[in-house]
Amino acid sequence: MGAAPDARGPSSGVASGLREVEGFRPPADGRRAEAHPEGVSLVREKVLILGLALLAMALVVTLTVRPDSRGASPSGDLQALIQARQLTPEHVRAALQTYVPPGRYDEFLMFASGGQSGQVLVYGLPSMRLLRVIGVFTPEPWQGYGFSRETAGVLGTAAGDGAGDGSLTWGDTHHPALSETNGVYDGQYLFINDKANARVAVIDLRDFATKQIVRNPNAASNHGAVVSPNTEYVLEATQYAAPFPFRHEPVTEASYNTHFRGLATFWKFDRARGRIDVAGSFQIELPPYWQDLADFGKLESDGWAFMNSFNTERAIGGTLDGRPPIEIGASGRDMDYLHIIHWRKAAALVAQGKGRVVNGIRVLSLKEAVDNGVLYFAPQPKSPHGNDVTPRGDYIVVGGKLDPNVTVYSFRMIQEAIRARAFSGRDPYGVPILAFDRVVAAQVKVGLGPLHTMFDDRGNAYTSLFLDSAVAKWTLGPPYHRGSAAWKLVDKLPVQYNIGHLATVAGDTTRPGGRYLVALNKWSVDQYRNVGPLFPQNLQLVDISGEKMVLLSSTPVGLAEPHLAQIVPMDTVKAWAVYPEVGLNPATMRSDPAALKKRGEARIVRRGKTVEVWMAAMRSHFTPDRIRVRRGDTVILHITNIERAKDAIHGFAIDRHNVNLSLEPGETETVVFTAGQVGTFPFYCTEFCSALHLEMAGYLEVAP
Amino acid sequence: MGAAPDARGPSSGVASGLREVEGFRPPADGRRAEAHPEGVSLVREKVLILGLALLAMALVVTLTVRPDSRGASPSGDLQALIQARQLTPEHVRAALQTYVPPGRYDEFLMFASGGQSGQVLVYGLPSMRLLRVIGVFTPEPWQGYGFSRETAGVLGTAAGDGAGDGSLTWGDTHHPALSETNGVYDGQYLFINDKANARVAVIDLRDFATKQIVRNPNAASNHGAVVSPNTEYVLEATQYAAPFPFRHEPVTEASYNTHFRGLATFWKFDRARGRIDVAGSFQIELPPYWQDLADFGKLESDGWAFMNSFNTERAIGGTLDGRPPIEIGASGRDMDYLHIIHWRKAAALVAQGKGRVVNGIRVLSLKEAVDNGVLYFAPQPKSPHGNDVTPRGDYIVVGGKLDPNVTVYSFRMIQEAIRARAFSGRDPYGVPILAFDRVVAAQVKVGLGPLHTMFDDRGNAYTSLFLDSAVAKWTLGPPYHRGSAAWKLVDKLPVQYNIGHLATVAGDTTRPGGRYLVALNKWSVDQYRNVGPLFPQNLQLVDISGEKMVLLSSTPVGLAEPHLAQIVPMDTVKAWAVYPEVGLNPATMRSDPAALKKRGEARIVRRGKTVEVWMAAMRSHFTPDRIRVRRGDTVILHITNIERAKDAIHGFAIDRHNVNLSLEPGETETVVFTAGQVGTFPFYCTEFCSALHLEMAGYLEVAP
Repeated sequence: MGAAPDARGPSSGVASGLREVEGFRPPADGRRAEAHPEGVSLVREKVLILGLALLAMALVVTLTVRPDSRGASPSGDLQALIQARQLTPEHVRAALQTYVPPGRYDEFLMFASGGQSGQVLVYGLPSMRLLRVIGVFTPEPWQGYGFSRETAGVLGTAAGDGAGDGSLTWGDTHHPALSETNGVYDGQYLFINDKANARVAVIDLRDFATKQIVRNPNAASNHGAVVSPNTEYVLEATQYAAPFPFRHEPVTEASYNTHFRGLATFWKFDRARGRIDVAGSFQIELPPYWQDLADFGKLESDGWAFMNSFNTERAIGGTLDGRPPIEIGASGRDMDYLHIIHWRKAAALVAQGKGRVVNGIRVLSLKEAVDNGVLYFAPQPKSPHGNDVTPRGDYIVVGGKLDPNVTVYSFRMIQEAIRARAFSGRDPYGVPILAFDRVVAAQVKVGLGPLHTMFDDRGNAYTSLFLDSAVAKWTLGPPYHRGSAAWKLVDKLPVQYNIGHLATVAGDTTRPGGRYLVALNKWSVDQYRNVGPLFPQNLQLVDISGEKMVLLSSTPVGLAEPHLAQIVPMDTVKAWAVYPEVGLNPATMRSDPAALKKRGEARIVRRGKTVEVWMAAMRSHFTPDRIRVRRGDTVILHITNIERAKDAIHGFAIDRHNVNLSLEPGETETVVFTAGQVGTFPFYCTEFCSALHLEMAGYLEVAP
Repeated sequence: MGAAPDARGPSSGVASGLREVEGFRPPADGRRAEAHPEGVSLVREKVLILGLALLAMALVVTLTVRPDSRGASPSGDLQALIQARQLTPEHVRAALQTYVPPGRYDEFLMFASGGQSGQVLVYGLPSMRLLRVIGVFTPEPWQGYGFSRETAGVLGTAAGDGAGDGSLTWGDTHHPALSETNGVYDGQYLFINDKANARVAVIDLRDFATKQIVRNPNAASNHGAVVSPNTEYVLEATQYAAPFPFRHEPVTEASYNTHFRGLATFWKFDRARGRIDVAGSFQIELPPYWQDLADFGKLESDGWAFMNSFNTERAIGGTLDGRPPIEIGASGRDMDYLHIIHWRKAAALVAQGKGRVVNGIRVLSLKEAVDNGVLYFAPQPKSPHGNDVTPRGDYIVVGGKLDPNVTVYSFRMIQEAIRARAFSGRDPYGVPILAFDRVVAAQVKVGLGPLHTMFDDRGNAYTSLFLDSAVAKWTLGPPYHRGSAAWKLVDKLPVQYNIGHLATVAGDTTRPGGRYLVALNKWSVDQYRNVGPLFPQNLQLVDISGEKMVLLSSTPVGLAEPHLAQIVPMDTVKAWAVYPEVGLNPATMRSDPAALKKRGEARIVRRGKTVEVWMAAMRSHFTPDRIRVRRGDTVILHITNIERAKDAIHGFAIDRHNVNLSLEPGETETVVFTAGQVGTFPFYCTEFCSALHLEMAGYLEVAP
């Protein structure tokens, strides 16, 4: 025992059989076998390890077939299975790490934006199973989102100022932000932005439903949403500069420089109401650079916020006229500007009445921000994107996509430089620029195309490398690591392909959890058999519990483009399994005056040209199941699911009326429509609720 | 070697350690170890098997750490991992059966309906990863579906007769049907129904995009879509009877019996054009029962079709008036009617000009159908739903949800009974009813709530049991199995919970593939940590390659409610990775006259109040990137993605204009809108296409 046979030169058929397994390499070291020598006597032979490997697999099969098993001879043993499926030892381990057996729960929830799908995706980790899509900016009939008065109200609230038909039916979600208490996810709310239309949504995690959408009245796009450590504010940075206040201005250099602006919008969150308070919110005017990523300070940097910017060149393109496209024009300078914002001071100034109200929201001007020490810049290389504050709030890590380094700013140094007025100049809009070498603690060479950084529980940082298609792991400096252990690239893992963001467990909070990292890859290319020319994105799960990162699994995303995700322990989120009382209105989260408490209260009342229906849904019928109206009547349907059993969900659809509700146990929703077409239309329950579900139907009669 | 030690009474700590693993039971039989005796000498001891088991796991770990591995000591060995994750031997096997390593492909595609989401879901098996959602009846911005002129045209075509605003933005998909050649999936097209609005859609599997939606002009709902063995027709059965021709009629017994009808609609499919030919389609009038499931005959029963019906009681409810709900009224009779339709004869009659044209489609009346031997009934117990033709076309299997048996009809016996005019009577509408004992070959007691049946490659049938929450496996009779081996329940597997449909590999074709079964469970209850009161559905993958069914994995579906699925070998579907030429219009699948072939052809032309733009998209800019119009102008944007690299996808969105396109390499799409609001609006690429993707932007100027 304890031999270390040279298994690199096996001579048996067994070994050569194993060698045929793709990627398999025989072990060089059998010492691990020492650990379990009890009761087993082994012959030392060259083929020992490999022979035992096969035996081992066979034994696992033996264990698999239980004495009282289903009696079948297994269709093959485990070893044959591993060979047939060409699984390497790494694959075997990854399979066992990620498989979640039927009925067991995942350990973590991941909230990922859905990009241009307009929705939020909720995954379980480590299985990477999609547990839920949450309708946010796009109507979604499975969950009845956008079809009831309640949900259409949420979707429509902010859409009134749209062009065309006055309603927006999609969004471009980028950055989900879980609400925080003391810099730690508290599992109560989720915020998410719509980049395309400068909106922010509030999702209540009791019922995983969108409750509010606010439109930024002064911005024409945004990039993300981040929350302050106690969720006092949700910060939204503009992506593309636009005329401020919003209006038509031509896109010329002179016009752009004069009339276009960026904005930092601090949406005040009223946690008790669970809603953004627009009147209590404020904005800070910024130069017409393209700000996008933002992060709040925490702990020692609490009260401050940091935003990147690029296109400080103020390139405006002009491709049809032969001028350089924006991607060239915007990549000219070596440095852009890290925006350093003293938001707590800004909030105090606004409370004192500083600034002016523009389209219903108070805006602190650039001059006021500069004059009052609210806004500073620091040089940032090059075409920066990621902008992430370390767990203790002591550093800000910036990834410049055209620079092979991450640049790390020290909050302490920033404060000292501000006190010392250590400026290297001012930008064209008068914003003081802190001297680069007075604020940068380190630069770490990580590779090509660094974008975003998240952290683990051992002082490590993980940066996505878009151009390298890799994740770089590197160490933070003091107090996380000291001396030669600090600021050091320690590992690099290839991913497939073109990673944008990444997420680690609670990796942007004051208490990162380690364990897993998810790479949000933008291209999948050859990773899946293509199902048409629209390729899925590729989420890859990585084990970061050891020194080296280990790729565990790949998950195609063929319904959305996740940009950023947050990963939270499952138990942090305490969702309702049923609505806590019968008759709850999901828009108000209070009892609905139009709710039924029991079936006997169902009724139909006509008042003039209005027919109002109070309907009960329970297995397996609606009460009433017949509604008679005349063409031109306004029909108001209040439907309550009076069930109390969890998962006893009912739907409600009417032929040709573009209605589908999802009514969870206890929920009341209302549908209003004008009876526009004569006919006798079936309505029915769209959720397969019981064996007699198909019989859960009725008719809407619309007489001439 | 070859010992069969009594491992039920292990005395070592090792054994008791293993016993702590939930569900673990030590093996009774070590004989499998015999298979690999080479080079290993073992001591026979009572603890032999268990000791070896641990050793085995340790060795697998050793194998895992390759000589040139990443140098990390593994964070624990495999055995510790299995214990920590409380995996049973069954779990280990299932994990290894279902894990698909990064970069490897799944073996099968599963096309599942999305229920009230209105979409189709495409999964890979055995990983059960969601490869793609296909927008069908519901707009979906990630894939740009419903936002371009092309895709809004597909979505809107059939919506013109809708109530209210004239457009339908959702559907209720139930039954996907892959196109077939000689009764085998050919991978070319997929059909899917919209139950809520009586529509059928055609999806082209070259680009996995919906090409056509047809509205049934005479029906008010449907249940599924099935194809004939050479895809000559797509059969759509009505779900809920409605006045025929469609109009207002009151829902009373007399009115219902007189004016309401069901319909069997045979949509003619023009395979060369890839479109349903409405003019070549026909309908057969049926009594006002609730038909829903249908299946085409094949091989010996080619030319015939079979449909179930329930509510032959013609119950109409009346819950508000204290009358019994429909689910009671519709469950009164012991028998409903299997509909037996000679569709080839019907098609010939229609070709001869029989029937009358109602709302643009030729309808064969009930009387014509009966008089010409097109329509027969056979009694069907009780509240039947499933209705599935066996692989050779020789039997029709019916599941009656209130009967514990499946009832198997012989096609040969049906033909003999028709020839012999062996009728037990006629229904109230004059349809001859074949005598039950003259057409039924067998009844097999399978359990409570049998619904749907699919088949494998060894003559077995699998029936879903909704009330038992189980799958029953049973044997078909001659020629599949004979004597005591025939018509026999051989296995039953619990599923979680309330299974509706199930799917096996090619399980409804003339060449079933065996291997896997997917249970489409309607309730998940306790199977996942709930993420709000809207619970996911639960797809469960089952290994059916052995004698006993083995549950492999569970997959939550938190975005749709799959009703039925079809599973096809991956290689059967040959999708495009890029559009075959630059400038392809996805609606016509031909070159678009407005396409650009190269960037130099980009231009803007004004004609009166219309501004037409020919735009090119390629990494990382649009040409043009600036568009100037005046308020009130009509803007026509033709955008071509001129890239040829696969996965080089671009999006196109404009602030506040409710536009998002997804442009795959080579694709041309057009957007038309009226410039309704003054302002300077950013537009940008919504798909993360390159490192300088954020710079892929421009401005739309709308001057006053």
